[in-house]
Amino acid sequence: MVANTQVIFSKVPTTYPVVGEHITVKKSEFDLDAPLADGEFVLKTLVLSVDPYMRGRMRDASTKSYSPPFALNEPMTGHTVKEVVKSKSSNFKEGDFVYGMGTFEEYFKTNDHVAKLYGLVVRNDPKTNGIPISNYVGILGMPGMTAYVGLYKIGEIKAGETIYISAASGAVGQVAGQIAKAQGLRVVGSAGSDEKVAHLKAIGFDGAFNYKTEDTATKLAELCPKGIDVYFENVGGKMLEVVLTQLNKFGRIIACGMISQYNLSEGEKVGGLMQIIAKSIKFQGFIVSDFPEAEPEFLKVVTEMILNKKIQYQESHAEGIEKTPEALLDVLKGKNFGKQVVDVAKP
Amino acid sequence: MVANTQVIFSKVPTTYPVVGEHITVKKSEFDLDAPLADGEFVLKTLVLSVDPYMRGRMRDASTKSYSPPFALNEPMTGHTVKEVVKSKSSNFKEGDFVYGMGTFEEYFKTNDHVAKLYGLVVRNDPKTNGIPISNYVGILGMPGMTAYVGLYKIGEIKAGETIYISAASGAVGQVAGQIAKAQGLRVVGSAGSDEKVAHLKAIGFDGAFNYKTEDTATKLAELCPKGIDVYFENVGGKMLEVVLTQLNKFGRIIACGMISQYNLSEGEKVGGLMQIIAKSIKFQGFIVSDFPEAEPEFLKVVTEMILNKKIQYQESHAEGIEKTPEALLDVLKGKNFGKQVVDVAKP
Ligand SMILES: NC(=O)c1ccc[n+]([C@@H]2O[C@H](COP(=O)([O-])OP(=O)(O)OC[C@H]3O[C@@H](n4cnc5c(N)ncnc54)[C@H](OP(=O)(O)O)[C@@H]3O)[C@@H](O)[C@H]2O)c1
Ligand SMILES: NC(=O)c1ccc[n+]([C@@H]2O[C@H](COP(=O)([O-])OP(=O)(O)OC[C@H]3O[C@@H](n4cnc5c(N)ncnc54)[C@H](OP(=O)(O)O)[C@@H]3O)[C@@H](O)[C@H]2O)c1
Repeated sequence: MVANTQVIFSKVPTTYPVVGEHITVKKSEFDLDAPLADGEFVLKTLVLSVDPYMRGRMRDASTKSYSPPFALNEPMTGHTVKEVVKSKSSNFKEGDFVYGMGTFEEYFKTNDHVAKLYGLVVRNDPKTNGIPISNYVGILGMPGMTAYVGLYKIGEIKAGETIYISAASGAVGQVAGQIAKAQGLRVVGSAGSDEKVAHLKAIGFDGAFNYKTEDTATKLAELCPKGIDVYFENVGGKMLEVVLTQLNKFGRIIACGMISQYNLSEGEKVGGLMQIIAKSIKFQGFIVSDFPEAEPEFLKVVTEMILNKKIQYQESHAEGIEKTPEALLDVLKGKNFGKQVVDVAKP
Repeated sequence: MVANTQVIFSKVPTTYPVVGEHITVKKSEFDLDAPLADGEFVLKTLVLSVDPYMRGRMRDASTKSYSPPFALNEPMTGHTVKEVVKSKSSNFKEGDFVYGMGTFEEYFKTNDHVAKLYGLVVRNDPKTNGIPISNYVGILGMPGMTAYVGLYKIGEIKAGETIYISAASGAVGQVAGQIAKAQGLRVVGSAGSDEKVAHLKAIGFDGAFNYKTEDTATKLAELCPKGIDVYFENVGGKMLEVVLTQLNKFGRIIACGMISQYNLSEGEKVGGLMQIIAKSIKFQGFIVSDFPEAEPEFLKVVTEMILNKKIQYQESHAEGIEKTPEALLDVLKGKNFGKQVVDVAKP
């Protein structure tokens, strides 16, 4: 028997979740010596990703939405990199690194059938290419791919245009900004602290501002002298209302997230939507998991950018699986600086 | 000298314009006997179109928007069919019918240069094809083309889908509904009177309801059992908020107009925008005049539909140019039944 700490979804919150109430840490055990059936294998979690959309999964199971609700009193799930520590599968061999939707616990037994269902894939590149494993749940994982898909499948970005990115220092935003910059756009971002803003400038944003201490409309007018052609929307609410006034004709809104709304018991309303017509704006939502066909190209392009030092990636690391609830709360409250990950174990 | 009644934009309104205050009728004269220079010609207005967007042009000239402001104390302009009554132009000959942006007055002298600038075109088909001239500012004019462009360039309509159209009995809506029906969609519409609703059913809508006397959410759920794939948005405000809750995944909003907002001193805010992301909705605005390349196909397709009695078109006729201000107010207040036109003179 080994210790198997689990992160449990324990109660549906109405506003911000509370650690120890809505999300709890449970100590349990796992039998590493139990024999495996054919096709079965045991995964040990190396790194896990806490992401804003998880707040939407912390809901009553009767409410429908794009991602399934967490099961009450069960371990939460999310993107992880795990290592195969025992195997009777020919697809997942001992020592393989496995990326995909995984349970938030230290050990987990699964099998080929379930692995296929959840789209788990072997991703052994970080063993040899020098890229940190945590990058595989960030810049090379779901958030990085969200930036890529948003820009290319939704945003129709073109060199010479101006893009504005909210929550720009985050897991998605910093990738979106640097790819857009490499593509020849003028890139402007906002974030919630001066440290984050300094980071944005350091990684090549043409302009950045702290939306908590400066006036968004004023700063956008100053930093986007030719107006905004593309808005990478991570925030929603009042931010969206202001950006609508500064979008150009034929502007696009890459509707990626609205994190300012996730912990409100009632969402804010947004004015000025007539501008969508007056300026022929395309305001389009997307969910990254609907674009699996984009993954090979995304991985190729962004891995090369990393290896050639054409892109940087800021991460916040929490150490130990028991820190997961706080790490998620940090993301929801903006305390993370860069992609928030939880380091669970070394390979 | 002949009488030349003009419709004058006389004051900027803050809510609904008032006839005699913001729009006034002016009696003036026109010298039909004055000699013409080369390239000049005189137009007599046959029919003119009053349209919702004109409310947006009744603004202070300093405010920018997609269509130019009306000039204060000058005749309003809009889509007209006029007849050439005198000409020294080789492009516009005596007796020709001319379609395009024209002044709201009985007579108007212009020239080849100005005609080109404003995109005036000779449209003599109604002399021989039996289609009423008024149709050329409605189903075969700007509103009909708006329906066509909205459905095909923005809405990505597909047979088997469900489309919901607000202000469905109007100039644009009734064309959109019948074309969508011909294309194999389930078509549902709403309008503001029982007479209009009966008309929608008579012209082939699968479902229709009076949004003033029935609950929109309830009726949409009932009439769109498979949800809404495409929303042809003419109204905005609360209607939009309700429709968002019933749109399907990958739904599209053809953002054509938001007439419920045009006469409010402050626009309404709209909630539930997170659904744009959760359901991967594309909410796209457009202005029909940005799609001139679609006109030949539109004219061909819809003229054939009319001649083959595959489409019907309801119009409200006001008689006499002096009725123009009331006719525009009727449109803004929903008193028009079908496309509102003003008959000014017979050819
Ligand atoms: N559509 C998809 O498939 C998809 C996939 C992944 C992510 N997303 C969305 O993309 C957005 C960014 O996600 P991420 O993973 O990159 O997160 P992140 O940016 O790393 O972390 C969230 C950040 O949002 C900001 N924030 C938090 N509360 C806020 C509030 N009330 N108002 C304004 N900003 C607030 C904070 O940064 P500041 O300090 O700058 O405020 C915080 O650091 C989220 O909305 C997420 O839901 C969508
Ligand atoms: N994007 C473009 O290029 C373009 C081009 C043309 C038109 N448009 C837009 O398309 C829409 C329809 O135009 P149309 O020419 O076909 O006009 P229309 O439908 O013939 O006339 C306007 C109708 O709107 C409805 N209405 C008026 N006030 C309303 C309110 N407060 N709330 C809800 N409905 C109201 C009324 O019908 P009910 O009795 O049913 O309420 C009225 O009859 C307008 O929004 C217009 O601005 C856009």
